[in-house]
Amino acid sequence: MPETVERKELEDLQEDLQQIQELLRRHRIVENLVGRTPGPRHDLVEELVHRQNLSELRKKLDGMHSAEIAYILDALPRDERLAVWDLVKAERDGEILLEVSDAVRDTLIAGMDRQELVAATGQLDTDEIADLAPDLPQEVLQDVFRALPVEEREQLRAAMSYAEDAVGALMDFEVVSVREDVTLEVVIRYLRRFDELPDHTDQVFVVDRDEHFKGVLPLAKLVVSEPEALVGAVMVKDSVTLYADDKAQDAAQAFERYDLVSAPVIDAKGRLVGRVTVDAVLDYVREKSESELLVIGGLREVEDIFASVWNSVKNRWSWLAINLVTAFIASRVIGAFEGSIQKLVALAALMPIVAGVGGNSGNQTITMIVRALAIGQVQVEQARKLFAKEIQVALLNGLVWGSMLGLLAFLLYHSIPLGLVMTAAMTLNLLLAALMGVAIPITMTKLGRDPAVGSSVMITAVTDSGGFFIFLGLATLFLV
Amino acid sequence: MPETVERKELEDLQEDLQQIQELLRRHRIVENLVGRTPGPRHDLVEELVHRQNLSELRKKLDGMHSAEIAYILDALPRDERLAVWDLVKAERDGEILLEVSDAVRDTLIAGMDRQELVAATGQLDTDEIADLAPDLPQEVLQDVFRALPVEEREQLRAAMSYAEDAVGALMDFEVVSVREDVTLEVVIRYLRRFDELPDHTDQVFVVDRDEHFKGVLPLAKLVVSEPEALVGAVMVKDSVTLYADDKAQDAAQAFERYDLVSAPVIDAKGRLVGRVTVDAVLDYVREKSESELLVIGGLREVEDIFASVWNSVKNRWSWLAINLVTAFIASRVIGAFEGSIQKLVALAALMPIVAGVGGNSGNQTITMIVRALAIGQVQVEQARKLFAKEIQVALLNGLVWGSMLGLLAFLLYHSIPLGLVMTAAMTLNLLLAALMGVAIPITMTKLGRDPAVGSSVMITAVTDSGGFFIFLGLATLFLV
Repeated sequence: MPETVERKELEDLQEDLQQIQELLRRHRIVENLVGRTPGPRHDLVEELVHRQNLSELRKKLDGMHSAEIAYILDALPRDERLAVWDLVKAERDGEILLEVSDAVRDTLIAGMDRQELVAATGQLDTDEIADLAPDLPQEVLQDVFRALPVEEREQLRAAMSYAEDAVGALMDFEVVSVREDVTLEVVIRYLRRFDELPDHTDQVFVVDRDEHFKGVLPLAKLVVSEPEALVGAVMVKDSVTLYADDKAQDAAQAFERYDLVSAPVIDAKGRLVGRVTVDAVLDYVREKSESELLVIGGLREVEDIFASVWNSVKNRWSWLAINLVTAFIASRVIGAFEGSIQKLVALAALMPIVAGVGGNSGNQTITMIVRALAIGQVQVEQARKLFAKEIQVALLNGLVWGSMLGLLAFLLYHSIPLGLVMTAAMTLNLLLAALMGVAIPITMTKLGRDPAVGSSVMITAVTDSGGFFIFLGLATLFLV
Repeated sequence: MPETVERKELEDLQEDLQQIQELLRRHRIVENLVGRTPGPRHDLVEELVHRQNLSELRKKLDGMHSAEIAYILDALPRDERLAVWDLVKAERDGEILLEVSDAVRDTLIAGMDRQELVAATGQLDTDEIADLAPDLPQEVLQDVFRALPVEEREQLRAAMSYAEDAVGALMDFEVVSVREDVTLEVVIRYLRRFDELPDHTDQVFVVDRDEHFKGVLPLAKLVVSEPEALVGAVMVKDSVTLYADDKAQDAAQAFERYDLVSAPVIDAKGRLVGRVTVDAVLDYVREKSESELLVIGGLREVEDIFASVWNSVKNRWSWLAINLVTAFIASRVIGAFEGSIQKLVALAALMPIVAGVGGNSGNQTITMIVRALAIGQVQVEQARKLFAKEIQVALLNGLVWGSMLGLLAFLLYHSIPLGLVMTAAMTLNLLLAALMGVAIPITMTKLGRDPAVGSSVMITAVTDSGGFFIFLGLATLFLV
């Protein structure tokens, strides 16, 4: 492998992380030796050792990509994180803030004053400032606005106006556009005037004098075509175009479907307003899938793994509280049948099986349907077909597993009626799980809500309380 | 909006889907009218109506992108899906098979004969054939091999040899490479000889005469630089490079971190063997996150939503069976305390709360840790720190929520000891959940297994059985 090639894959980054932690550790040892925090009155030797560690650390950081530093900051415990943050060159603050996770960004911003924050946005594009804006204090944002030229102020206002899940939130304004009646040679001469094209410029956009979008001219086409050809003759007219208030999710699917690197964003009058690039889409897809996983796992947001205990508790509190309420309801359902349980204590041991397997089965159904709804593959109108199929699956599962459990119940407690009640309750709870597994996400979609959020909690609540009610109810009717 | 611009976002596709279903419906009506399947002996009028529908349908399909047809096939019930598949031009079969979901691909391949399948691979690149290979019958694969030129045969063999989660599985072989001692003008002349550059060519690769990788020449740099400059002077030397047997996950992170469109893949000797492009990475990220969601939801693989009942049952069977076993174990734990429950039936009503909240809390911990492990942000060595923090969180939650539930138990059953047992059991079960929530994913990682798979089922099993045991055990000791 040629030595000039720098590979920064995960393992290399983890090595960097360890080196930085080692430097920080040495730095702390020196500090502890002199028994005070760094200040102007260190004596010479200490001062030198101290400086040497810090300058080594700073050199290390200067050689790193912003995204790499963000990775390091995300992975460091709070004190070490702030120590590293102090050593990062101020002009990179903005870029790094963009890259760190939300939780870590909050901790970094909390330690910066107004002036530092305004300066940090200084090196960012307007669409990037818009990404940071929700985390910035109000007065900082006002200063930032005032510092921008008029045109960029408008851009920032526009970028901040889009919903978080709209194409506008993914958009940037770094479009390079040309006219269709010039030759490729003119285009090439025009492009040469740039020191550097914006990142992810795989195509330039073709517009008329009123900025109406006409088509795209891929660079790959530009370099293989004859210079004398006209842009209008070479450009691609039927490229994908997006609207700023389209759903980001739909744009992501278009990028996947058509393997795009960039796509133009136009307004209602067909004027080019910006572009979306694949790196923004990739980040979006990753964040979206991550937040789905978090919701299913019962967390509110990505947690800084070194968050204080208190912050962690806050992050988890809301779902725990909901869970507590649903568990309490299920407990009251059981409470209503205490008389039956007293008479036949086997019921207490068997009832969690009915509830648990129902919850598992309901979650299977809901997972499948939430996914199909998310990629737009199933329309709400097809609900009847889905109901029919899920009910068949539930019946089959209920009869097979229910019979098996009925048999087990019979073997354990030597009661045929108990076995039959077990089988019936199991089948009914699986049917309930199937019905609700289809009904919950479809209803949420009809109400315009995201079916992924809370579906799992709801189905489990239903199959728990429902399972206890069905099993104990049947037992009360037929056994006690 | 200019009329030439064709937008195919989700809503348009859904419209296409409806049109196709309408055409299929009409097609079926004609078939039912004549009371037979299409054959050579229709009389003239029927034949004409019939043909008209089919030709309209075919025209519609011919105008669609392969990925769009794949979307339609994924969304259609089985019969209609096969009807559409028959109408698709044979030369597009291969591309479409690549795009449909795994479950649907199986149904399509099952209906094709050996010759059709070999022909379908005819239009694919070797890396694409490798993607299809696992789903192709053995004898088809042999025919495909035989039909390939020697060089491509080697490529196919190489591509098939990589693990599914290795960079090699994302790689393609469409590299355009140049030498460093030529001028940009020579490069441009060379590129013009291509009719079209490979998709996602944002850069060409610079190699020496032995194919050793030297650097990359971004097209954006090519077009802005003076034609007289030498490649060696303009090229970027410290670009990210990948090895074919690196983890795909690490490559995906590198693409995200450095906003890449393409990256070279080199072998151990530093020779260029292929490249990875962002569209492959985007597909990988999406599929990976999808399969995580499925696993958490208790499904084995993406389910064709119109799969037969039997196929659905098979897909869900394994997790249900595991769940049944864990539920049964929990039930036996309760069974061991039947005597206590008989004496104090309130235990039966309260025990699911202890188990349920423990499960929820454990899943929160495990979700956070699995995520941190996946992005390499936490090393297994940091386990002690994580344990310490999670235990503090659990203690705090246990005391707060436990006291609240203890109070509720006291209010419901007027027993102070019962309330205290409730509080203690809740706290202990949350501690157990925290311990196992850290221990399970870290142990699985140490054993080299994917911590995302099965973690949720395991933690729930532990907190269920553990919760019942702790609560009923304490109750037996102190209350009955």
